[in-house]
Amino acid sequence: MIEQEAKRLKQITEQLISTKGSMVYQSPRHGELMPSVEILKETVELLRKIIFPGYFGNSSLNEENIGYYVGVNLDRAYHLLMEQIRRGLCFDCLENNDKICGDCNHHAKELTMSFFEKLPEIKRILSTDVEAAYCGDPAARSHGEVIFCYPAIRALTNYRIAHEMTKLGVPLIPRIITEMAHSETGIDIHPGATIGEFFSIDHGTGVVIGETSVIGNHVKLYQGVTLGAKSFPMDKDGNPIKGIARHPIVEDNVIIYAEATILGRVTIGAGSVIGGNVWVTESVPADSKVLQ
Amino acid sequence: MIEQEAKRLKQITEQLISTKGSMVYQSPRHGELMPSVEILKETVELLRKIIFPGYFGNSSLNEENIGYYVGVNLDRAYHLLMEQIRRGLCFDCLENNDKICGDCNHHAKELTMSFFEKLPEIKRILSTDVEAAYCGDPAARSHGEVIFCYPAIRALTNYRIAHEMTKLGVPLIPRIITEMAHSETGIDIHPGATIGEFFSIDHGTGVVIGETSVIGNHVKLYQGVTLGAKSFPMDKDGNPIKGIARHPIVEDNVIIYAEATILGRVTIGAGSVIGGNVWVTESVPADSKVLQ
Amino acid sequence: MIEQEAKRLKQITEQLISTKGSMVYQSPRHGELMPSVEILKETVELLRKIIFPGYFGNSSLNEENIGYYVGVNLDRAYHLLMEQIRRGLCFDCLENNDKICGDCNHHAKELTMSFFEKLPEIKRILSTDVEAAYCGDPAARSHGEVIFCYPAIRALTNYRIAHEMTKLGVPLIPRIITEMAHSETGIDIHPGATIGEFFSIDHGTGVVIGETSVIGNHVKLYQGVTLGAKSFPMDKDGNPIKGIARHPIVEDNVIIYAEATILGRVTIGAGSVIGGNVWVTESVPADSKVLQ
Amino acid sequence: MIEQEAKRLKQITEQLISTKGSMVYQSPRHGELMPSVEILKETVELLRKIIFPGYFGNSSLNEENIGYYVGVNLDRAYHLLMEQIRRGLCFDCLENNDKICGDCNHHAKELTMSFFEKLPEIKRILSTDVEAAYCGDPAARSHGEVIFCYPAIRALTNYRIAHEMTKLGVPLIPRIITEMAHSETGIDIHPGATIGEFFSIDHGTGVVIGETSVIGNHVKLYQGVTLGAKSFPMDKDGNPIKGIARHPIVEDNVIIYAEATILGRVTIGAGSVIGGNVWVTESVPADSKVLQ
Amino acid sequence: MIEQEAKRLKQITEQLISTKGSMVYQSPRHGELMPSVEILKETVELLRKIIFPGYFGNSSLNEENIGYYVGVNLDRAYHLLMEQIRRGLCFDCLENNDKICGDCNHHAKELTMSFFEKLPEIKRILSTDVEAAYCGDPAARSHGEVIFCYPAIRALTNYRIAHEMTKLGVPLIPRIITEMAHSETGIDIHPGATIGEFFSIDHGTGVVIGETSVIGNHVKLYQGVTLGAKSFPMDKDGNPIKGIARHPIVEDNVIIYAEATILGRVTIGAGSVIGGNVWVTESVPADSKVLQ
Amino acid sequence: MIEQEAKRLKQITEQLISTKGSMVYQSPRHGELMPSVEILKETVELLRKIIFPGYFGNSSLNEENIGYYVGVNLDRAYHLLMEQIRRGLCFDCLENNDKICGDCNHHAKELTMSFFEKLPEIKRILSTDVEAAYCGDPAARSHGEVIFCYPAIRALTNYRIAHEMTKLGVPLIPRIITEMAHSETGIDIHPGATIGEFFSIDHGTGVVIGETSVIGNHVKLYQGVTLGAKSFPMDKDGNPIKGIARHPIVEDNVIIYAEATILGRVTIGAGSVIGGNVWVTESVPADSKVLQ
Repeated sequence: MIEQEAKRLKQITEQLISTKGSMVYQSPRHGELMPSVEILKETVELLRKIIFPGYFGNSSLNEENIGYYVGVNLDRAYHLLMEQIRRGLCFDCLENNDKICGDCNHHAKELTMSFFEKLPEIKRILSTDVEAAYCGDPAARSHGEVIFCYPAIRALTNYRIAHEMTKLGVPLIPRIITEMAHSETGIDIHPGATIGEFFSIDHGTGVVIGETSVIGNHVKLYQGVTLGAKSFPMDKDGNPIKGIARHPIVEDNVIIYAEATILGRVTIGAGSVIGGNVWVTESVPADSKVLQ
Repeated sequence: MIEQEAKRLKQITEQLISTKGSMVYQSPRHGELMPSVEILKETVELLRKIIFPGYFGNSSLNEENIGYYVGVNLDRAYHLLMEQIRRGLCFDCLENNDKICGDCNHHAKELTMSFFEKLPEIKRILSTDVEAAYCGDPAARSHGEVIFCYPAIRALTNYRIAHEMTKLGVPLIPRIITEMAHSETGIDIHPGATIGEFFSIDHGTGVVIGETSVIGNHVKLYQGVTLGAKSFPMDKDGNPIKGIARHPIVEDNVIIYAEATILGRVTIGAGSVIGGNVWVTESVPADSKVLQ
Repeated sequence: MIEQEAKRLKQITEQLISTKGSMVYQSPRHGELMPSVEILKETVELLRKIIFPGYFGNSSLNEENIGYYVGVNLDRAYHLLMEQIRRGLCFDCLENNDKICGDCNHHAKELTMSFFEKLPEIKRILSTDVEAAYCGDPAARSHGEVIFCYPAIRALTNYRIAHEMTKLGVPLIPRIITEMAHSETGIDIHPGATIGEFFSIDHGTGVVIGETSVIGNHVKLYQGVTLGAKSFPMDKDGNPIKGIARHPIVEDNVIIYAEATILGRVTIGAGSVIGGNVWVTESVPADSKVLQ
Repeated sequence: MIEQEAKRLKQITEQLISTKGSMVYQSPRHGELMPSVEILKETVELLRKIIFPGYFGNSSLNEENIGYYVGVNLDRAYHLLMEQIRRGLCFDCLENNDKICGDCNHHAKELTMSFFEKLPEIKRILSTDVEAAYCGDPAARSHGEVIFCYPAIRALTNYRIAHEMTKLGVPLIPRIITEMAHSETGIDIHPGATIGEFFSIDHGTGVVIGETSVIGNHVKLYQGVTLGAKSFPMDKDGNPIKGIARHPIVEDNVIIYAEATILGRVTIGAGSVIGGNVWVTESVPADSKVLQ
Repeated sequence: MIEQEAKRLKQITEQLISTKGSMVYQSPRHGELMPSVEILKETVELLRKIIFPGYFGNSSLNEENIGYYVGVNLDRAYHLLMEQIRRGLCFDCLENNDKICGDCNHHAKELTMSFFEKLPEIKRILSTDVEAAYCGDPAARSHGEVIFCYPAIRALTNYRIAHEMTKLGVPLIPRIITEMAHSETGIDIHPGATIGEFFSIDHGTGVVIGETSVIGNHVKLYQGVTLGAKSFPMDKDGNPIKGIARHPIVEDNVIIYAEATILGRVTIGAGSVIGGNVWVTESVPADSKVLQ
Repeated sequence: MIEQEAKRLKQITEQLISTKGSMVYQSPRHGELMPSVEILKETVELLRKIIFPGYFGNSSLNEENIGYYVGVNLDRAYHLLMEQIRRGLCFDCLENNDKICGDCNHHAKELTMSFFEKLPEIKRILSTDVEAAYCGDPAARSHGEVIFCYPAIRALTNYRIAHEMTKLGVPLIPRIITEMAHSETGIDIHPGATIGEFFSIDHGTGVVIGETSVIGNHVKLYQGVTLGAKSFPMDKDGNPIKGIARHPIVEDNVIIYAEATILGRVTIGAGSVIGGNVWVTESVPADSKVLQ
């Protein structure tokens, strides 16, 4: 009886792997390892500890020991991230069949260090986002509360990290990083989007910011806002053409209320206010008020 | 002082358990163990590793060792799931007071093996979902990116697993499994729903697919789409009658844009397009376009 | 080469901590420790095990040993929570520079014990929420299924815990606790809100209940409902004035369907029904039906 | 290259399992699970927490909550041990090919409960061992120090647990339990040995107490003492005959100094003193002094 | 049936705790927490990482980041150890009923900082022990090998840490620390013993160095050597008088070969060689050779 | 006050790292990582699971799935060990300053694969050791008991693994592996020793087998036996000359009883019996009996 069970499990195993050549199972070139979502999670948490020390990670920080904690977390994050970027390069390489990862190790090191050199600037911009959330929300009791628990800060930390990687040309990894934040906060920001300083999102669940969106400074969104594509051109095989600018441009000082949907490569002029639940598919001039 | 604290905690403990006979605390029949959400989580992650080896779990897969990893994960998942299905049967039994779990052990084994025999087919259908997501999204760089990070694939994996269990008659467990995905992705698919091949959900947050929904092949949803019930008949005690078909039928090749809400046992004819934010409570014929 | 890398990482560390005096990095008074989100998570899970024993935590509960398990979890939760409340007091203290935490240890003990004395009542109210979810959803097979997997019960457990802390004057910690549930369920309830018995939320993703909302008994919400602020007065420096009543009052027996948005200090009269996707910014009398 | 490596690893795997039918790999009857050393370790640590609450496990014990902690640990230990005893019975069964485990589940339950009923007595005897160590060692500052760190107490706890199991007829498990203590303390006591109250071992490393040894009350050993077999009769196949009494009898109030070796079924009369490094292979009368 | 089991377990729990007033169960004064062996283990491992960075703990140390790692480990070890020393003071206090821990918190801080100020000197002396092991053993390939795997270095690290604590008057904790090393290495050094520089122990299993032993510089022991007490005076109640000098003095440059036993307050003169298995109970002059 | 503490800890950190250039802190060449004792422990446990599947690691092995478990463990062990061997090569390289690790990666791969190809033979020899222990000990109830809990089998597994690595020229790593077993069992076997088949050690604590020992087949040792060096020649600087044959040769079928000490490059002739506590420094012919 038990032997029969064991035999059936073996048959199922064999059925499952017999499909291993199919499209679903891919592997990096040259027998390299696959990226690990688990380790990327750990890496992003280390970066969060580096950017907001004391809030995340060690609780006993003071002026004397903060350097030690940041230094150790930076060293750990560096080694972990370099390995994952290397794997990302190898994985991508398979897909496009090009020669770019000739020296993956070397390239991964350069990309990782270039990314780390952006960290002080990432920290600075995130501090403007904290400021914007604190000033814009009557329920916020302190900057500390904003850092500890506002989902927008969590999502923006992941996004700003991932966006710098995307600008450096790191494949795959940035998208995995923003999807972690999507899962935790319900805020879906594509790492390709461009977002200015003092950006805030209230509540956040259901916000979607598409790949080619461009957002200015001092912009505020509420929950459920979508900056999406209206349609996208197909190639001759009926597949969507990748990489075309197809999401909105939102200029400085715009406020967009809950559940508003803005679709296509339209421009929301500076200082405009878009009301809740509104559906916008054409550009609006500066200082407009668009209500339902 | 400390003694007083200890005494007050003891009193509170006693107050809390004195309500143990109330409706909130239930236990399986015959002193059996309760299902464990923690172990079900572990089980579903093992199934994800079996279906998408290399992407989840071990990073060093190759053609020679893939069988070992799949075989080990299958063996582990089998033992864990069988025990949870057994507990689910016992738990259910209490609720309805029937005799079905006379031989729970035996029944659990049969259900578990029957479910495992569906795994190759579940893997095949999920590969069509990956294909649909890749082809339908200009932001998708590779099939691998889709598997690694698209929330729809995560939610559909849980759903397709849970749906097969539901069809076999496994109580309680499938619902716990789809709610895990709901928590992680904001996509709420009831395990009782029926969904065809090449199904895709873009972004996903806020999607609700109700228990008696029926969805064809090559259907695409955007974030915030609801396939819900309009109302439900009450029995003579004022409680909703369970199990009545009350959610939409969506035929092949339908696209439903963001935040659209379709309520009741209506049919969206094949090839139709439902616009964003639209509210539909009546059937529409094939190839319709419903816009706000 | 490696030496160069090490030196660059050291420079980046120094750049990062040279901004440590900035607004982003704050620390509690008197060198006290920061609150720990990790430990708060553990504490809330212990409270969940205390309130719903058997469903969460140990699976082998029976009438004889339930007291042991509840007693141990209560003792653990007490020590963990007292320490976190103490840290919360010290953290808050820094922010407002007042003298309230003169004897933080003592104050934290009192607050923690006062909170624990509310636990039996919290458990009782949550059992009414379970009842409401079970009765109101034709897809619910048993009370157990509701406790095991309904996101609303998870979110309400965190909210009801956090709300009692807020009433006692515990700073920061309650908000961290409700945001944990927001992340897991997409349901964002501010701990300051007041919510009656037999409250239910179906599906839940995207629900927002603002800080000064007041909700009666037997109220039911669907996914995506917002009880928000319409606008808020600014002080002379252009910052929002904190603490003003600015969210809706929802009286007994109201049902609000999916994606409805109710903004401002309006009153939804008892027994009213607010339809899906509706936008309400003015009060409605009892027994109204507001549809799109 | 990497493919070649993968292929060689596969070949080695196959070579390794092709010897699976050999004597080294055995498995329990009827496809039952093997005992788990890891889980036995966990179980013994739970028993240590039950016997010496506060010293091991939870640090916050007081008169009010001690019952909760002991009750929870007892419940956990009971389930873990019952399963391991069941597996031990099945494993043994294979070896001797008899019929004793016809109803292994039932038998394991009985044995486990019988063992648990001995726990209060085991605790009482261990308290005499603590007393003996405290009184006999000028370096012992408190009873607490003895419990916290004397290796003899650790080894005797494992032994006294394992000995009761051996008396009940539990196979395999007791020996695994005493070998855990051997590894941790260098004190090797066979679970079959019989040892009276107020027993102490100073330092302990290298002590060996053989399977059929019998030790009275108030006996004290120093490090490196061996109570061993001198020789053992062989059966006609040249294998040692199992189960013959072949180790010393040490009567009440005997002291045996460091590195002394006592071999064979000899009797060390009550009140005797055996000097360090002495080699004894014949019985000595009561109150003897045997020096080098 | 299961109910009966549950009831019997409850009875056993009650029997076990009804003996809680007995000698075996003691608790610190004022409801303070018990010391935790687990946390002391973690603390000692942190100290090992501080003393031998790179060998234990993080593997990626270099000249730039070593300060970060040492600083973080020092900060962690400081908080953990201070708490354990505080608990040790409270525990001891109960035993002797004195007033010394009036301000345990304050006293623990002072003791901990005083101990930490000895760490650089402890590191320096341990480096002489490493040197002695390397020079004295033809099997040692490098200093690194000695640090990585010689049990004597592990035991001496624990001893030298514990000895400094003992000198500062820390109760209980030092003994727990040396017993950890005893368990891991079979080398039993009492923290009260005094040991000079360049000390080495080859192989080590079975070595015992008693509480009042005094050992000079450049001494070498082999496995199984005992520096023990010959006898100890009893007080009028028949209990050993604590704290009397009763173990050997071993002067500089002495070698003691395997299994030699030296008992009582005798002096082994500088430069002497004691042969293997020899039994010494009287002093020997400088440069003696004592062989069997 | 707290600031002062923080400052003093910083000063101590700086004192500790200012000695980083000293002999105690060494690092591998070219900024490579240090070997990790933790990961080597994990690796050895994987090898133990490969050699004795079912006894260690997974408990649910059967004829169908054994290949999966062995294959997965082999794959994991291969990657972990290769990395540690690479680090060992780099570490060694620093020490001796030679050029051997020009291509460490490549060399490590070759060494690791060569070692893995020995695994089937290591398993075969270990099965003879199991047989010897079972046949030679009247207390052994089954082969399974021997594998589960005899310390000699644990120590020999580590030794036989480490010895093969030593023969291949792997530096440092083998010594770390045998010292793990020394710590766990009190049996200290240098990986350089040569040991034949059907080898057994009873009880084991205190056994020492030196680097250049040579042991034949069917040899049995008891606890406390030393095969050591009598003396070793010094070079002109007074340091011991490394690598000279200085430990005993023990021929086939020899039995050496407890605590016997055999020193120097002497030969114990085949079939001899060496009594307990005996001290041997000269060769003895075949079939001798040497008693005290």
